[in-house]
Amino acid sequence: MKVIRSVEEMQYQCRELIKQDKQIGFVATMGFLHEGHLNLMEHAKEENDIVVASIFVNPLQFGPNEDYEQYPRNEEKDLLLAEEIGVDILFIPTAHEMYPSKMLIALSTVERADVMCGRSRPNHFEGVITVLTKLFNIIQPSKTYFGLKDAQQVAVVDALITSLNFPIKLIGIQTTREQDGVAQSSRNVHLNRHEREEAVWIYKALQKGQQLVVDDEKNPAIIVKEVMNTINDKTSARIDYVEILSYPQLKPITVIDEQVILAVAVNFENTRLIDNLLLDKNGKLVSQFK
Amino acid sequence: MKVIRSVEEMQYQCRELIKQDKQIGFVATMGFLHEGHLNLMEHAKEENDIVVASIFVNPLQFGPNEDYEQYPRNEEKDLLLAEEIGVDILFIPTAHEMYPSKMLIALSTVERADVMCGRSRPNHFEGVITVLTKLFNIIQPSKTYFGLKDAQQVAVVDALITSLNFPIKLIGIQTTREQDGVAQSSRNVHLNRHEREEAVWIYKALQKGQQLVVDDEKNPAIIVKEVMNTINDKTSARIDYVEILSYPQLKPITVIDEQVILAVAVNFENTRLIDNLLLDKNGKLVSQFK
Repeated sequence: MKVIRSVEEMQYQCRELIKQDKQIGFVATMGFLHEGHLNLMEHAKEENDIVVASIFVNPLQFGPNEDYEQYPRNEEKDLLLAEEIGVDILFIPTAHEMYPSKMLIALSTVERADVMCGRSRPNHFEGVITVLTKLFNIIQPSKTYFGLKDAQQVAVVDALITSLNFPIKLIGIQTTREQDGVAQSSRNVHLNRHEREEAVWIYKALQKGQQLVVDDEKNPAIIVKEVMNTINDKTSARIDYVEILSYPQLKPITVIDEQVILAVAVNFENTRLIDNLLLDKNGKLVSQFK
Repeated sequence: MKVIRSVEEMQYQCRELIKQDKQIGFVATMGFLHEGHLNLMEHAKEENDIVVASIFVNPLQFGPNEDYEQYPRNEEKDLLLAEEIGVDILFIPTAHEMYPSKMLIALSTVERADVMCGRSRPNHFEGVITVLTKLFNIIQPSKTYFGLKDAQQVAVVDALITSLNFPIKLIGIQTTREQDGVAQSSRNVHLNRHEREEAVWIYKALQKGQQLVVDDEKNPAIIVKEVMNTINDKTSARIDYVEILSYPQLKPITVIDEQVILAVAVNFENTRLIDNLLLDKNGKLVSQFK
């Protein structure tokens, strides 16, 4: 596995690979790799000639009171995991390498970012699409893989690629979960033991919501209420939102008659967790977005 | 010469060319080609394996009261001229092909667009960088050529490419002029005979300004005043601006001690004209920007 830290070198290497007719599969991460990331890399491995992964905790997507400094990092372990899974090139730029001078161009979202996490994390998705535009231009992948745990991010990246004609295929991969159902997340490490035990109820609450859809409940409000009640009853977490929206448009709906996302965000004492289920109109889990 | 009207086909063809290790030189135009455009295409021809030119009158960069509908068009003649000069692929999409649905992502400028033409054409450069981002992603050129007549555009494209890491080299080519010195522009066709005669004084006024710099005048205000007086004395045009700014930063300066642009925009009865000289600190004309 090659480790590259320079933008110029990375861009050059990838252009050379494309000239050799190599398909690049790209996985953007903020590091502290877990099974969810490795699963994305495995998918990329299967479907491309070369897998490029990036590790970059992007300051632009963190708010002033968010956990940029506290975001967990472990480069040494990440290197081992990425190598083991078969990543060909690991791109690890510094913040200065990615943002050497003031940004003279800004990207913003017109839709899909004013709901769910976008409501409590203003400018978060602007930071995401800005760094991804830069990474896409540096790496020039044919395909890029994102986890559906960050389903809103997948919807926003879909908007980015489609509206700006990036020559890239976006693939959203189903959330990987711990044995008890808790969604894999780098932030889980910050949960205390009690919170970690309660966290399973976020997934269980989502499953209760899904069961209602399977049982032909078409009213999103009833399902949202059931999910909220379960989380409030079973955990000490403060709910940020529970929402059901069309997917990937992320528009409010009054009847479940299309693909939807049932999504939740909660705040434990020091840790924000998100989770969701992507469901077809009959409540069946959608396993991949492309 | 191949003519392509479909985004998908264009993107596919260009990716195939890159795989064959072909360097693509790209010239974006709004059509109604004149010697200025052809000069860009000739430069592209010299320095690349393949020349792609686009003809697209981009609605997004025209204001509500501007001349989108009136902008001169002549596809038949453009096809002949492009073929003759040796363009390999001419991309001519419709507005619907470029903007098939609502844009979900917006680009905006942080600097360089709030002076000169940006002042009287709000959102103009946002439209420019949006369509260029799309065209860059569709055509994936190695080099792109722009005329320095639109020097502010060159500065904004430089910002776009640099800030977002597009793998593209920007080359700004010196303005081509009629024999009497008037800058080549598609809009010149809308001047009446009297205005066309007066238009030469825009260039002459700029040259007077340049001569002052050559003669060691370091104060931009004195030069701006001289240029304004000349245009007011010799033409019926209404001056929109005369400015001297650092280039490509486009910051106000109080002393001429670096590369600067001396730029002017005027409105004749139905036609807006712009022109400029790019000067080093000694007043010598800068012939290329890269």
